[in-house]
Amino acid sequence: MGHGVEKTELMGIGTKYVIGYREGRKLAVIARKDGTKEIYLFDKDHVAGMEHPSAVLTLDDEESRRLAAVLGGTFFGD
Amino acid sequence: MGHGVEKTELMGIGTKYVIGYREGRKLAVIARKDGTKEIYLFDKDHVAGMEHPSAVLTLDDEESRRLAAVLGGTFFGD
Repeated sequence: MGHGVEKTELMGIGTKYVIGYREGRKLAVIARKDGTKEIYLFDKDHVAGMEHPSAVLTLDDEESRRLAAVLGGTFFGD
Repeated sequence: MGHGVEKTELMGIGTKYVIGYREGRKLAVIARKDGTKEIYLFDKDHVAGMEHPSAVLTLDDEESRRLAAVLGGTFFGD
């Protein structure tokens, strides 16, 4: 499962995951110690050489689990 | 697991999941038959009475699985 995901501990904050995305873009998740997860999509700005998040979602623990179930195909309900 | 997620079949397209989000917002995922998943965050526009997506992510099958593992806390690698 390690393939395509880069994990970094952020001391005192939580864990950062960087997920390979298409066309030079990066998907980053900050998993905070309180269970909150922030999802960032970074587009590369080739002119300024800087990265700007173009989509940001903040999810609490429950929302993260629901979204994980839907994305992972393990949601079976109605 | 059905709690907090509303599932709707979109004939010929795939499946739509609407996940309860905070403050009247909605998180929607369209899971297409080809494995692509689109995540939308809708903010309620109380003036126009319409809903506008404020964040949109499109993920292929592999990206979805990686993000699901990170969000669900089942990612163990480095």
